[in-house]
Amino acid sequence: MSDTRIERDSMGELDVPTSALYGAQTQRAVNNFPVSGQPMPSAFIHAVARIKWAAAEVNAALRLLDGKRAEAIVAAARAIVDGHHDDQFPIDVFQTGSGTSSNMNVNEVIAHLASRDGLEVGPNDHVNMGQSSNDVIPTAIHLSASLAVQESLLPALAHLRSTIDTKAGELDAVVKTGRTHLMDAMPVRMSQELGGWSSQVGQAIERFEGCQVRLGRLAQGGTAVGTGINAHPEFAERMAKALSEQTGLRLAPNDSFFASLASQDAAVELSGHLRTYACTVMKIANDLRWMNSGPLAGLGEIELEALQPGSSIMPGKVNPVIPESAAQAAAQVIGLDSAVTVAGQSGNFQLNVMLPLIANNLLTSITLMCNTSRLLANRAIATFKVREANIREPLTRNPILVTALNSVIGYNAAAAIAKKAYQAGRPIIEVAEEETDLSREELERLLDPARLTEGGIPG
Amino acid sequence: MSDTRIERDSMGELDVPTSALYGAQTQRAVNNFPVSGQPMPSAFIHAVARIKWAAAEVNAALRLLDGKRAEAIVAAARAIVDGHHDDQFPIDVFQTGSGTSSNMNVNEVIAHLASRDGLEVGPNDHVNMGQSSNDVIPTAIHLSASLAVQESLLPALAHLRSTIDTKAGELDAVVKTGRTHLMDAMPVRMSQELGGWSSQVGQAIERFEGCQVRLGRLAQGGTAVGTGINAHPEFAERMAKALSEQTGLRLAPNDSFFASLASQDAAVELSGHLRTYACTVMKIANDLRWMNSGPLAGLGEIELEALQPGSSIMPGKVNPVIPESAAQAAAQVIGLDSAVTVAGQSGNFQLNVMLPLIANNLLTSITLMCNTSRLLANRAIATFKVREANIREPLTRNPILVTALNSVIGYNAAAAIAKKAYQAGRPIIEVAEEETDLSREELERLLDPARLTEGGIPG
Amino acid sequence: MSDTRIERDSMGELDVPTSALYGAQTQRAVNNFPVSGQPMPSAFIHAVARIKWAAAEVNAALRLLDGKRAEAIVAAARAIVDGHHDDQFPIDVFQTGSGTSSNMNVNEVIAHLASRDGLEVGPNDHVNMGQSSNDVIPTAIHLSASLAVQESLLPALAHLRSTIDTKAGELDAVVKTGRTHLMDAMPVRMSQELGGWSSQVGQAIERFEGCQVRLGRLAQGGTAVGTGINAHPEFAERMAKALSEQTGLRLAPNDSFFASLASQDAAVELSGHLRTYACTVMKIANDLRWMNSGPLAGLGEIELEALQPGSSIMPGKVNPVIPESAAQAAAQVIGLDSAVTVAGQSGNFQLNVMLPLIANNLLTSITLMCNTSRLLANRAIATFKVREANIREPLTRNPILVTALNSVIGYNAAAAIAKKAYQAGRPIIEVAEEETDLSREELERLLDPARLTEGGIPG
Amino acid sequence: MSDTRIERDSMGELDVPTSALYGAQTQRAVNNFPVSGQPMPSAFIHAVARIKWAAAEVNAALRLLDGKRAEAIVAAARAIVDGHHDDQFPIDVFQTGSGTSSNMNVNEVIAHLASRDGLEVGPNDHVNMGQSSNDVIPTAIHLSASLAVQESLLPALAHLRSTIDTKAGELDAVVKTGRTHLMDAMPVRMSQELGGWSSQVGQAIERFEGCQVRLGRLAQGGTAVGTGINAHPEFAERMAKALSEQTGLRLAPNDSFFASLASQDAAVELSGHLRTYACTVMKIANDLRWMNSGPLAGLGEIELEALQPGSSIMPGKVNPVIPESAAQAAAQVIGLDSAVTVAGQSGNFQLNVMLPLIANNLLTSITLMCNTSRLLANRAIATFKVREANIREPLTRNPILVTALNSVIGYNAAAAIAKKAYQAGRPIIEVAEEETDLSREELERLLDPARLTEGGIPG
Repeated sequence: MSDTRIERDSMGELDVPTSALYGAQTQRAVNNFPVSGQPMPSAFIHAVARIKWAAAEVNAALRLLDGKRAEAIVAAARAIVDGHHDDQFPIDVFQTGSGTSSNMNVNEVIAHLASRDGLEVGPNDHVNMGQSSNDVIPTAIHLSASLAVQESLLPALAHLRSTIDTKAGELDAVVKTGRTHLMDAMPVRMSQELGGWSSQVGQAIERFEGCQVRLGRLAQGGTAVGTGINAHPEFAERMAKALSEQTGLRLAPNDSFFASLASQDAAVELSGHLRTYACTVMKIANDLRWMNSGPLAGLGEIELEALQPGSSIMPGKVNPVIPESAAQAAAQVIGLDSAVTVAGQSGNFQLNVMLPLIANNLLTSITLMCNTSRLLANRAIATFKVREANIREPLTRNPILVTALNSVIGYNAAAAIAKKAYQAGRPIIEVAEEETDLSREELERLLDPARLTEGGIPG
Repeated sequence: MSDTRIERDSMGELDVPTSALYGAQTQRAVNNFPVSGQPMPSAFIHAVARIKWAAAEVNAALRLLDGKRAEAIVAAARAIVDGHHDDQFPIDVFQTGSGTSSNMNVNEVIAHLASRDGLEVGPNDHVNMGQSSNDVIPTAIHLSASLAVQESLLPALAHLRSTIDTKAGELDAVVKTGRTHLMDAMPVRMSQELGGWSSQVGQAIERFEGCQVRLGRLAQGGTAVGTGINAHPEFAERMAKALSEQTGLRLAPNDSFFASLASQDAAVELSGHLRTYACTVMKIANDLRWMNSGPLAGLGEIELEALQPGSSIMPGKVNPVIPESAAQAAAQVIGLDSAVTVAGQSGNFQLNVMLPLIANNLLTSITLMCNTSRLLANRAIATFKVREANIREPLTRNPILVTALNSVIGYNAAAAIAKKAYQAGRPIIEVAEEETDLSREELERLLDPARLTEGGIPG
Repeated sequence: MSDTRIERDSMGELDVPTSALYGAQTQRAVNNFPVSGQPMPSAFIHAVARIKWAAAEVNAALRLLDGKRAEAIVAAARAIVDGHHDDQFPIDVFQTGSGTSSNMNVNEVIAHLASRDGLEVGPNDHVNMGQSSNDVIPTAIHLSASLAVQESLLPALAHLRSTIDTKAGELDAVVKTGRTHLMDAMPVRMSQELGGWSSQVGQAIERFEGCQVRLGRLAQGGTAVGTGINAHPEFAERMAKALSEQTGLRLAPNDSFFASLASQDAAVELSGHLRTYACTVMKIANDLRWMNSGPLAGLGEIELEALQPGSSIMPGKVNPVIPESAAQAAAQVIGLDSAVTVAGQSGNFQLNVMLPLIANNLLTSITLMCNTSRLLANRAIATFKVREANIREPLTRNPILVTALNSVIGYNAAAAIAKKAYQAGRPIIEVAEEETDLSREELERLLDPARLTEGGIPG
Repeated sequence: MSDTRIERDSMGELDVPTSALYGAQTQRAVNNFPVSGQPMPSAFIHAVARIKWAAAEVNAALRLLDGKRAEAIVAAARAIVDGHHDDQFPIDVFQTGSGTSSNMNVNEVIAHLASRDGLEVGPNDHVNMGQSSNDVIPTAIHLSASLAVQESLLPALAHLRSTIDTKAGELDAVVKTGRTHLMDAMPVRMSQELGGWSSQVGQAIERFEGCQVRLGRLAQGGTAVGTGINAHPEFAERMAKALSEQTGLRLAPNDSFFASLASQDAAVELSGHLRTYACTVMKIANDLRWMNSGPLAGLGEIELEALQPGSSIMPGKVNPVIPESAAQAAAQVIGLDSAVTVAGQSGNFQLNVMLPLIANNLLTSITLMCNTSRLLANRAIATFKVREANIREPLTRNPILVTALNSVIGYNAAAAIAKKAYQAGRPIIEVAEEETDLSREELERLLDPARLTEGGIPG
């Protein structure tokens, strides 16, 4: 390709596509890392640009950067934040462990955009002023993840939770055979079952909110090794303030920049919460799949909305595709978390060197859990129908209902009745009538499934 | 063996060792699960006994259980909590997924102990009154883990943190070459480096404390399926209160017993915090190992206390055995966490069926991190010596010190000086003197490593 | 405690229990590593003793060790291999990463035992002659794991497979509704379903056998760093031969001792096969659990042998406890494998320093999978009963049987028939009779479930 | 958008982009699964197309499909295999667990392409003839992975290995201080060290080759549930033969189609080998990073090729970016493997329902390990320079050389000499001369590092 121009950096000259807004260092990184073909997520690049925007303002306020350059940098950075240049950040996720290449990519694009009209803006001396990749990238990890949690994940979880609660409200009258160890157990209302899911999602929300405190503690101001060399003494505080204003998040400098650069514990924590939530998703998805199983040779309790033909060979088959998609997304989040755990161990002395991987996996997992939560809510939970006849059929015959007699006749006598009912395949009430002094009416009252879902000691 | 007696349960008769305090169901479980040879951790059994103790009091207060039996149950349960019968709980970790076998084991031992002196106490009707394994076991998981965090883990972490802080205080004058990407970077004080570890441990403490809220929400009162069937309506609240008083923890019934029985999200969360802390331990252990490396062909910055001969073949060799032990413990915690994540996905409908595994792995990991933290503190961090000569030698020659000139001469000019110094192997100050207008005195001031650890913009 | 004697090593003097067969270095390690309370597995200690036994023979044959000492060492080592001194190896798993402490423990016990009767045998100069912990421990990892695979795991898997095959043979006439996505699909024989499990176990056997080749390549002879310093040039070959003769395994020196000491790839591979087999166990356990679910509100296809009362609160409940135990064992193996993967990354330069962890986790996982396989075979698969009525009921009504008409009437026409049958809840054959030109007899032939399990194109 | 046409399937009508080659079912899946934004890997789609190509030929040969349609299908499928329509497969990885959507996507595109010129080719009845997604997708997983291993991964590993071997050959004269526990140990040649890496890569090759046998066993012919319903009795054998001819791989029907559809053990095995190789990559990458560390305050043994400026703030810094990229790729492979392990547990009865995830993660990991191996070879190993002066300096002073005297003076005497040399910081030879009867010449011979790398018993 002859459509190139020559760029230079501290290592020398290099061909760069004429149309590129970036410079030599970006091009070097493109050449050096043909690994996955997958560039850094846009949300991460936008967070780096937010830092550049804030830094230009802060450096200008500190009179370290002239107002004209600052304005030009801010304008360029905002354009990136607004998504206008997403194709200008081609560097692979699997790059230098510090993410320096991505930091320089943003520096170069901003310098290029800001240098128009006679103004000369340098990627290192101006755009990167008071910063190092070593504090910018950890800051961008916290910032991008925290924003994604705040703006995407928490609303999606709240939506899932309220969808579950609404559905539970509609199904409060549905009493079904409870299952423990997959075996028939005491009855529950379907609303109680869904209430369990809702509680799980609620506590997931609590966890993500709790983690925001630690994600809000930034590396910015630590510069190269954590000492803050080459940054103004007020830089860290002012940056946290500027970024808080930009984003609405509550941000502050971490209590140790040395920890911020060398370790990624808050990221590992967030990743842990994501995989804990993945376990919640797995529970909900599996319950839905099994409730929907059948229609004849399965549990057949519900019928999920039919979204697509289920089989290329078996006509008429409809499968629980949304729960399956959700379960796979959950599995992937669990896997990406394992990688983050490896990355979290990869700090030595003053720097962790798996930062791009961490950034990528956190944002990917947040996206997966966010979209999955909405799909589960909208295309599975909101729309399933209950097959009441199937649910009603085994309910009253269930020998385990005898549990309700424990306080009246004792565990061992109750066990003998249950055993007899199982073996004979007879309704429990019949056997109990024979084996106890309790009247039919008394037994009907004691063994009424709906009443038994209210808890308490029958009798 | 003829030293057996005959016991019976709802399934029939069975031989049990004469000396055993347990009964038929425990023996069945011993026979059924010859898997790992590893019984449930004592801390878990003690937590189950605590529940029995509280339940007897609560049931007595609710006039469901007569005072004599209640007293006998309490006395027996307290003896177990005090560790007097640890050998009476032989059931394998890999048992029924609900932990019913361990619940019945405790029920049987207590019934046996309490039944002495003519009083008849039944394992199901009295000891297990108002309870089901399905709420006892999840409650015992939260209770045992929360207690271990409170009484063992948090103090161990606080001790590690204060040991690091004390050591950092002693080493504040030690200035060393910082390392990012393992490459020479700007100088740091050793106290700053250790301060990074301290901050990590501090935030780990914060995480464990935050999780206590969710561990404090108990399943107790949900009984068989979450509805609370067969328990008094006030049972859950009273049990949480009684257990709070017993332990000093802040406990309450969970907002959904259905979630408590069917899922284990708080346990997965705690396990996640343990493996996040394992990453912290790994960072500290690796820094120590590398600082200690050498003595000649390594970094040689410190000398760890010599604890044992290092080699069966190389005389005089001393190895960083405590950090190695710590790193292995961290690796195991990461592994046990993976198993807990699998377990956290193993709930269907009203019950999670990997409860004994979860209990075991949480308690094992807490023990590992607790003991490892104290060993790292006492046998590595508190006792290492600094090898100052080795540290001083490369400090002032380090070409990267040129970073301090960025704000004076710009990044590109600084890079040219650094490159020249690297290639010639000459002290950076000499080259800088030649290549800039700065005087020797000015350069000495600008490039003084100790001053550079204080951050800010040199000049 | 005054019941101690004084021992010394190259670091000085130390109190050791009078009754101990070990010496100063073991005692130092006991003091240094109060971490998990869990000593190294006996199978590992026995493998180290096997190496000492072989080394004494080889060194004697090479005339480096006098015959008397060699004999005494062999006798002592064999006593350890025979399990006579298992309580003399108290060192924690979480010890020095090279396992030097365990190597010295064996050296010391053997030296102590062999030194009786005036003969002086030194732990380093005689028992450890030509060896280093750095080749002994990796060799013992391969040796103990390979032996456990050969003598325990492979027979257990073969037993499981033949138990499945026998059961499948008995159940060949049972035709059931197949399930894909948990939804009713085309019919299968229960023997075919079990045949799938059998094939999985068969290929697991193949994997373990394949890995034996790489486990059979030993580090022994590499000594301290891989060069073989201080060992006779023929030592490696002779040791592999001697150990092959001792064990019946096919052993040889690895093609690079440097790889053997510094990495643990064969161990990571074996661990990977164990967790792959854990996935197989999980599949079988889950199928069994779901087939057994009910009895009324579940699939109810089989009835597992009742092994113990299932519930402390619900009388008469019987749970699938063996599959649950198996699933938990599988989860633990997956977790232990994660730890081994972390350990497998922990080599730097000439040594991997997570060797005791690797040894422990491999042997633990082998034990778990071995015992679990036998339990699944003997207490679940061999003994379950089929509930034929439940299986037969939905079989012929299943609308998916219409798949058999694809080749006759096309996918779309078949789909329309299935949809109609689903909506009306009518037998598929009735709807097909209405909607096609096919006669009742022809349809009965085409839609016969048993015939459809034989595959091929109906018609 | 008005640029749509109407398509229909068994569920009804739907808008599809006019330009799309696919039909209604693909569009439904695009609408149903807005999860990750990441489509299935092209290599997987190509493998599905290969199956369609082979199936058309086989069905034509069996006279089930007319020659004209077969030809048209083959031509369309080959165009897909050649990469001409990669943009026509937009369905998300997180879709229905069977991958039915992707199978139908390929069926629809081929039907569309093949239907040109008056010929009518149906996606189900013709393109999917004798197949089900349930056998196509597992076959495509094995086929795509096996091809990627054969054509990309194995050559990349062979290249890495030969690059290491060549470099080792060049460096055979470089003798360096060995390191165990990171501590100075007996000397090794750099060629021996690299030989360890080479051996690891060699055994990785062996593993991948061994796994090809099991990947070569195909599900094809099992159709919907494993019975082969709707496929010709010779279909499975003929398909394996046709695909073998197409690809050069050795393929055969699996011994149980039930296992092939319901489980993914061979995929889990391959994933395990990938993460074992990731451990190898991690070892090599870490050794390189540490050898390169410094240049002043690190080990400084080598100098990696300078590929890009290392720091946005520290001028002149050059970092080990290729090893860091490699280590991150290894971490990601370990993570993707964890997800595959979850997926490998997700089979129930006749189908595993995490197939798209498995396909995606295997192919992603193969790509990562393939590209990483070549980068490590070409941009790190082939091009690093040795800094001989740094290596030579500590070599002869190393007190551990005293190990060579073990056989002459015994371990304890040697230990005393080493200790004295350490404490005084004196050359070992000087102290040995004082403390033994050995002459200076004798000691020089015994302690010569180069000679000591040859192993054997000095003396």
